Amino acid sequence: MSVLDRLPTPCLVLDLPTLKRNLARMRAAMARHPGVVLRPHMKTAKNAQIADLAAPGKGPITVSTLAEAKHFAAHGFRDQIYAVGIVPAKLPVVAALNAAGARVKIITDDLATARAIAAFPGTLPTLIEVDVGEGRAGVAPDDPALLEIAAALGARFEGVMSHSGHSYAGRSIDAMADLAEQERARLLHAAARLREAGHLATILSAGASPTAMYARSLEGITEMRAGVYMMGDLLQAQLATHPLEDIAVTVLASVIGNYPARNAVLIDAGALALSKDRSTEAAPRDWKFGRVLDRDGNPTLGDAMVTRVHQEHGEVRGDGGSLPLDRLQVGARVRVAPNHVCLTAAAHDRYHVMEDGALVAVWPRINFW
Amino acid sequence: MSVLDRLPTPCLVLDLPTLKRNLARMRAAMARHPGVVLRPHMKTAKNAQIADLAAPGKGPITVSTLAEAKHFAAHGFRDQIYAVGIVPAKLPVVAALNAAGARVKIITDDLATARAIAAFPGTLPTLIEVDVGEGRAGVAPDDPALLEIAAALGARFEGVMSHSGHSYAGRSIDAMADLAEQERARLLHAAARLREAGHLATILSAGASPTAMYARSLEGITEMRAGVYMMGDLLQAQLATHPLEDIAVTVLASVIGNYPARNAVLIDAGALALSKDRSTEAAPRDWKFGRVLDRDGNPTLGDAMVTRVHQEHGEVRGDGGSLPLDRLQVGARVRVAPNHVCLTAAAHDRYHVMEDGALVAVWPRINFW
Repeated sequence: MSVLDRLPTPCLVLDLPTLKRNLARMRAAMARHPGVVLRPHMKTAKNAQIADLAAPGKGPITVSTLAEAKHFAAHGFRDQIYAVGIVPAKLPVVAALNAAGARVKIITDDLATARAIAAFPGTLPTLIEVDVGEGRAGVAPDDPALLEIAAALGARFEGVMSHSGHSYAGRSIDAMADLAEQERARLLHAAARLREAGHLATILSAGASPTAMYARSLEGITEMRAGVYMMGDLLQAQLATHPLEDIAVTVLASVIGNYPARNAVLIDAGALALSKDRSTEAAPRDWKFGRVLDRDGNPTLGDAMVTRVHQEHGEVRGDGGSLPLDRLQVGARVRVAPNHVCLTAAAHDRYHVMEDGALVAVWPRINFW
Repeated sequence: MSVLDRLPTPCLVLDLPTLKRNLARMRAAMARHPGVVLRPHMKTAKNAQIADLAAPGKGPITVSTLAEAKHFAAHGFRDQIYAVGIVPAKLPVVAALNAAGARVKIITDDLATARAIAAFPGTLPTLIEVDVGEGRAGVAPDDPALLEIAAALGARFEGVMSHSGHSYAGRSIDAMADLAEQERARLLHAAARLREAGHLATILSAGASPTAMYARSLEGITEMRAGVYMMGDLLQAQLATHPLEDIAVTVLASVIGNYPARNAVLIDAGALALSKDRSTEAAPRDWKFGRVLDRDGNPTLGDAMVTRVHQEHGEVRGDGGSLPLDRLQVGARVRVAPNHVCLTAAAHDRYHVMEDGALVAVWPRINFW
């Protein structure tokens, strides 16, 4: 009997060899750009043991919440970027972490906020967020506000950062490489304007998993931020960030209902355990709410996927009605590969870490804010 | 300065008077059916203090996870239904709770599982799940399996239960009342067949918030399960479960970016803090990822809604481009009313309980499994 038959379901399973393979792949991709630092984004993993693998030697990391910033600072990760636009009310927490020995950098694209940062006591190194085409946050590289914000930040200004989240809509390696080049050009243009105006732009921080993997040149960029590559998911596999079989995180679930009349089963992983993320909806291959694998994580159930979710129920069907119901009796166990691992993992408070069929560790996740 | 300016964002806010109003409304609706017990479903609230208000005197409740079952049993709620199809591996937890004084009932629609329940030592009162039209789980009222499962359960059989989740697709009070009547008729038919065969069907448990609110008759039904009515959300308001202004749970968020060029702001509540639930997508009024209210929960921002989410970013736009950007500078605070409160609340570990503008309590949520 495998430990996978004994774990309470639903629960999150992390395959350690797959994680390590994904980390090595990104490390190899980044090695094509000597001098460019990889600053892993811990928003997906939210766990210090994984940070130790992704950023060995307490290397630089990126975080998405102040809860993460505190957790990783407590585990010795001093060099962080909190990569969500700061608000003045959050400055005391960052200043306290930095007073205690961390060096958490913050980001802004707002003039009034830059003035509040400059006026706040303590150490608050700041990057200006630049919009390189995603249209989410950031000032345009040509915007006059860029220079005003840098002037307002004064000595706290350390550089520029951008996010190429629109690379997730890329449909070929060439498209991803083109977006990476566009991001590089725009970030360099912003930095050049700032330097001309006398501001010392030391850090040029770019990134997303697909662009980090496929950028042709990163000349001028000082560091890349990427996170989802560690775990992988059904969308990233279709963006060629990793092979389909290298999804490190899955949800272990039990079959709770078997319905021959409609060739479907129910599992105890629903909207809460999987999330309602439908990232693959517009991808070449739509996996609905997740691909269903067998207990050991192998694709022996045909094209089984979770076709419908309720809070604690997931309905599983085969793509062509081919679900092997005899192997999916009530109590049988399956694994669900996620559309978007960041969202699915966030539904769980821990990883059950597996290596060669054995449970080797249980690692906590730092959820919430 | 309001406490709403000081709470760390994003966070969950529960308006206590609204919660109490929603509870009273359901109590009044159920009072039309003397003798029918309301068994509140705690899957939405996941908190014992709220259970004390919804099921006063440690009354009967419904739960959706074993984590909830343990939590509520520890708080004195003995009479529970765990309303998700049981698997044999979960029987030891239920039997242990019942050995310690609880009376947690379980449900199944599977013959092999019924045999496993019958063979398991301890107290395991069991209901058979009947499909009354939702097509999710349950045996059809006419299915021969109904009698086989009851026979297999033997003395552990206590009755039947159904869920009319398809009432969420109802578009009028009449449609909801019709579905409630359909559920009643089918559940009674199942119970009649079982009684004819000599099985003592004591419990006939039905429900969902819209049908509990609008059923014309519940004759023969012994109890109704409903949960989302406590909190309310943008979908339930459109199902007439409660008025639009009676949504008790909102997400407090800070503006983190202000973009006049595209008449939009970003807030620090994104896919994780709001969930990616799009329940209102097919409703008459589509609120995208949530309706945006002002800091005090009032609709003074026009038709502002969260139009796009990333992990920690929510993009807010007005319906007709009418967003009052001057009141939404970086650092300003807003509240987001959820599409589907069960999913949104599950992203948070606590409620900040407000009454008349004051923070009166912080209540934990029992998330995970």
